[in-house]
Amino acid sequence: MKRLYFDYSASAPPSPGLGAFLASLESFKNPSSLHQEGQKARAFLESTRKEMKDLLGAKPRDKLIFTSGGTEANNLVFASLWHQECVGKKVIISTVEHASILSLIPVIESHGLIPVFLPVTANGVIDLDYYQSLLDDAVALVSVMLVNNETGFIFPIKEMARMAQEKNIPFHTDATQAMGKLVFDFSDLCVDYVSWSAHKFGGLIGVGGLLVRETCDVIPLLWGGPQEDAKRAGTENMMGIASAGYALKNVCNNVDSELERQQKLREFFLEQLAKKLPHCLVIQAEQNVPSIVSLAFPGVDGKLMATNLDLEGVAVSFGSACSSGALNKSPVLSVLGFSDDIAQGTIRISFGSETTQAAMSTLLEKITLVYQRITGEVS
Amino acid sequence: MKRLYFDYSASAPPSPGLGAFLASLESFKNPSSLHQEGQKARAFLESTRKEMKDLLGAKPRDKLIFTSGGTEANNLVFASLWHQECVGKKVIISTVEHASILSLIPVIESHGLIPVFLPVTANGVIDLDYYQSLLDDAVALVSVMLVNNETGFIFPIKEMARMAQEKNIPFHTDATQAMGKLVFDFSDLCVDYVSWSAHKFGGLIGVGGLLVRETCDVIPLLWGGPQEDAKRAGTENMMGIASAGYALKNVCNNVDSELERQQKLREFFLEQLAKKLPHCLVIQAEQNVPSIVSLAFPGVDGKLMATNLDLEGVAVSFGSACSSGALNKSPVLSVLGFSDDIAQGTIRISFGSETTQAAMSTLLEKITLVYQRITGEVS
Repeated sequence: MKRLYFDYSASAPPSPGLGAFLASLESFKNPSSLHQEGQKARAFLESTRKEMKDLLGAKPRDKLIFTSGGTEANNLVFASLWHQECVGKKVIISTVEHASILSLIPVIESHGLIPVFLPVTANGVIDLDYYQSLLDDAVALVSVMLVNNETGFIFPIKEMARMAQEKNIPFHTDATQAMGKLVFDFSDLCVDYVSWSAHKFGGLIGVGGLLVRETCDVIPLLWGGPQEDAKRAGTENMMGIASAGYALKNVCNNVDSELERQQKLREFFLEQLAKKLPHCLVIQAEQNVPSIVSLAFPGVDGKLMATNLDLEGVAVSFGSACSSGALNKSPVLSVLGFSDDIAQGTIRISFGSETTQAAMSTLLEKITLVYQRITGEVS
Repeated sequence: MKRLYFDYSASAPPSPGLGAFLASLESFKNPSSLHQEGQKARAFLESTRKEMKDLLGAKPRDKLIFTSGGTEANNLVFASLWHQECVGKKVIISTVEHASILSLIPVIESHGLIPVFLPVTANGVIDLDYYQSLLDDAVALVSVMLVNNETGFIFPIKEMARMAQEKNIPFHTDATQAMGKLVFDFSDLCVDYVSWSAHKFGGLIGVGGLLVRETCDVIPLLWGGPQEDAKRAGTENMMGIASAGYALKNVCNNVDSELERQQKLREFFLEQLAKKLPHCLVIQAEQNVPSIVSLAFPGVDGKLMATNLDLEGVAVSFGSACSSGALNKSPVLSVLGFSDDIAQGTIRISFGSETTQAAMSTLLEKITLVYQRITGEVS
């Protein structure tokens, strides 16, 4: 049997036709070189940047800095705080950010800044009154993700960014799990910085970027040549950037109808699941991307579920990929207030444009089978 | 006429067969994922790492951390100094390091360290007595490149690293321009850290690495997931790493005979050049990689030479790619003590495995033609 891949949020399959597209490109030379080979690479780089900015809703003077991925983009925003004027200031982040932000907490503190956490409830709510009460002159940055990587919760970033904007506080959102999973418009979103990663929407692994509002800036994390407007040194990852541009175009091409299709797949799956396994808990917010389904099987070992599904030919994840190796319970679910019973019994199903209803049906069958095998229950 | 590419040091052409090799690979999933797709990626990643370590002469317990390139690898070594214990300590670097090290000087100072410069003479000599006199308990790091990017000078890294080793001082070498241009052996070289970049020896742009001696360590520059033994967060650039492994194997395969061939090409070219353009100055050290030829035409505008050669179908560089856009004279030649007359009149020719003697002959013709056109001289 063909394997079924339900881990798009860890890494999406390549955008349709990506291999042929990349093979059709000449091998790129160094875009900093002045000769024709270099200038050809430069022209391709800049036209890709422009296309991507347009697709993302950025204005001509907004910046798009290419990085080695979402992690570097997130680190770059925070590294811009490592200077004297920020000492003693606060950084507001949610409790469910990606590891590339939560891991920075000791670094934030070592630079004399104070991290302040925004709690998120089990159904994905951030208390906006509390949030607003935190916004004052002592806040150097707010950073809240647009879509949570484990649950698919969509946070009210536009509203939150507007509240920060009123107080002239820079606002960053990690949109790594958002691109291709919802309609994205930088100008509409009112944020100042947006991180993204290409392999989450069908590009190659190893490339991402940071959108920066015209009026904002960053301090480099990587120092060296004057690439990326002197904000990110190092020869630009030409093939990676080409793949990002190609994949983003594909994703944006029919995002409305695709999201509608994904919503139907989700509803179909969850309806059937509720009938087959009524004990199963769906972790979701009122605003949730359709393509991430976080399921908890109380009292069952989620890692064992995922491993058994893998043996049955179905790839899902336990927690997110960045943490799945080492942990026995989902740190995100724990922080959302779920008991260990639930945080240990969770799996994440994430799908995308190549997922069919037939695949969802098979997934359902396999989950039921594996659940019954582990628990000894027969439906 | 087919264009002739003499800018391998900016970016080498893809390793023979690289496109087909990459196309033959399945699209990689996230190597941190626990399912079969993830574990396949993991296995490929680790076998590539092992192969590359072997080819580079690293021992099993030495580390190879993959990065987004040479710039990140260099920055990573220095970022490991940004802590309290290093305040007030010295960092010894040569005056001709790459921009990704020289640009760090204000950052080094902002972290309370003191940069100390090792001068290099016009014929590539570092005064080792002076160097030795600098080595004391107050030195936190020595960082000297193995091969200079603009001139091809080979520095006596083994000897210098041994002297540092005797005083327990960590030694880093930026070998970005060395891989494939000389025989490289990490174990023999006595250094603790080595940076490299794949696109300089036929891999893709956007991937590089840092070799770290078993007994040494780094503090991460990118924080997040536990990738790369928790030393470099971010999903590993699988295609980039695959390309690096492939290209390194190709390069190491017949490095001795290829270097001999390159040495003959260099000698042929320089002999003919001396006859045709006796005013031309060859910038070289006693130990020089054959494949980088730095030429100065006193009184002539090197940028104009390069531009005219480009129009004639020959790609060479003025200075190195990372700085060639903005400058009117080579910063490396200036620092080596050459007059403006010479530093403004320089071009860099760099070649490699696909360069034939016929190409060298055409290059010679074109240089002569362009030189005569610019100066009005007729030979």
